Amino acid sequence: MTDLQNISPQALRQMIREKEVTGHTSGMAKGYIQANVVILPSKYAYDFLKFCFKNPKTCPLLDVSEVGEVNFSKYGKDADITTDVGAYRVYKNGELIDTPTDVQDLFNEDMVSFLIGCSFTFEHALLEAGIPLRHLEEGHNVPMYITNIPAEPAGRFDGNITVSMRPMTMKDAIRATEITTHFKNVHGTPIHIGNPADIGVEDLDHPDFGEPVQIKDNEVPVFWGCGVTPQSVALDAKPDLIITHAPGHMFITDIKDSELSD
Amino acid sequence: MTDLQNISPQALRQMIREKEVTGHTSGMAKGYIQANVVILPSKYAYDFLKFCFKNPKTCPLLDVSEVGEVNFSKYGKDADITTDVGAYRVYKNGELIDTPTDVQDLFNEDMVSFLIGCSFTFEHALLEAGIPLRHLEEGHNVPMYITNIPAEPAGRFDGNITVSMRPMTMKDAIRATEITTHFKNVHGTPIHIGNPADIGVEDLDHPDFGEPVQIKDNEVPVFWGCGVTPQSVALDAKPDLIITHAPGHMFITDIKDSELSD
Repeated sequence: MTDLQNISPQALRQMIREKEVTGHTSGMAKGYIQANVVILPSKYAYDFLKFCFKNPKTCPLLDVSEVGEVNFSKYGKDADITTDVGAYRVYKNGELIDTPTDVQDLFNEDMVSFLIGCSFTFEHALLEAGIPLRHLEEGHNVPMYITNIPAEPAGRFDGNITVSMRPMTMKDAIRATEITTHFKNVHGTPIHIGNPADIGVEDLDHPDFGEPVQIKDNEVPVFWGCGVTPQSVALDAKPDLIITHAPGHMFITDIKDSELSD
Repeated sequence: MTDLQNISPQALRQMIREKEVTGHTSGMAKGYIQANVVILPSKYAYDFLKFCFKNPKTCPLLDVSEVGEVNFSKYGKDADITTDVGAYRVYKNGELIDTPTDVQDLFNEDMVSFLIGCSFTFEHALLEAGIPLRHLEEGHNVPMYITNIPAEPAGRFDGNITVSMRPMTMKDAIRATEITTHFKNVHGTPIHIGNPADIGVEDLDHPDFGEPVQIKDNEVPVFWGCGVTPQSVALDAKPDLIITHAPGHMFITDIKDSELSD
């Protein structure tokens, strides 16, 4: 059996392309950046690119394809964005209409693909620093909440930001802030530490996405900008067509985690 | 006489708008970021925005207007980009056709304005650290050179990057690198230290822009990405119309230098 943890990004993308690998990509091609994917018709690309520029903590843009190209000049030179993600979500006018395993039939020469950083990269650094991550201990997705904090709007893209939450001691929260200041391209420092109500989050036990985690008495909730923001804002904008990765089925890039630390 | 060094950005922009201030803006509204300006028809805006994203060391984008708006949501809420620069350059199909003091008659609802960081911001930090800057000592513009290093292309925008050069001792060059790592939005760390030929610069005494400076025996040339790059690359792309600031006549922003340091 192939060791998917130590496989190269190129080989892993090939296996995904050939549907030999179909599951969540967490832990695969260890050390390489995994990215959120947004594919849009070019008429929306300028506003979406501007939205990413204006909202670097929630929408840290890693790469953007040329119009009509299926690869990325830096993050995946021999990639094919229409086949190299294990599962896609296809939305038309804001409604989910399909969850295919490739989107070759939907892609055309007028489309643009965006790769957006995900917290997987900085989570690895937090674990290395000895900061435990509850959702990983509990073996499920991180809890995510829609806040009352408006993103900076750009053209038709406008909406509130989504955050992910990791409980930890205040000492670890400060250390985690120190560490993530060096990961500006994957959400950077926390949006908020402490009181959920301050950012419009009513009930930590009922996240908008993902699953709730236990918060111990000596812990505070720590909120980071979340890669769901560009998707949810893009869906609010109700474009004719938007294709994203399905949660957990990330795009595996050629770039190492260490290149996003500064 | 008004103290232009300690004036607010808003008041200074008003004086420029009313043509009470017409000269170079160097040293004015001290502590506030001054920016390079590029104004383009919206059909070029996506490629140019992408070019800035792909070339952060030479084209550090600070803000972008909404299409047809003359102000900036962050860097100049009550600004008017068509009047608040002391002197403009107007190019049609790559040819300089006019150098007006306002561009109200040329601007229309289809245009987009970009603000790009300039080295003024980090030069202040270098001086504060006791690193002398020769071009300021000699009282003229910094020398700038077109290199053989290609920028990352984006759509029609494609070309080699331009650098500015400041001679200093190797000890100061290392300290300057340390300091400018904290100024990622204004060119960041040097592109090169040492041998000009390594980056395709043949003759330091004949810069492509600006004026040459003396290099002492114990000094090395230190090259930073330069805000002329987006202009020169944009001109190579020969858009129907592009409007820029005239050299030295920068756009005065509402944001303090310190906000660009991290």
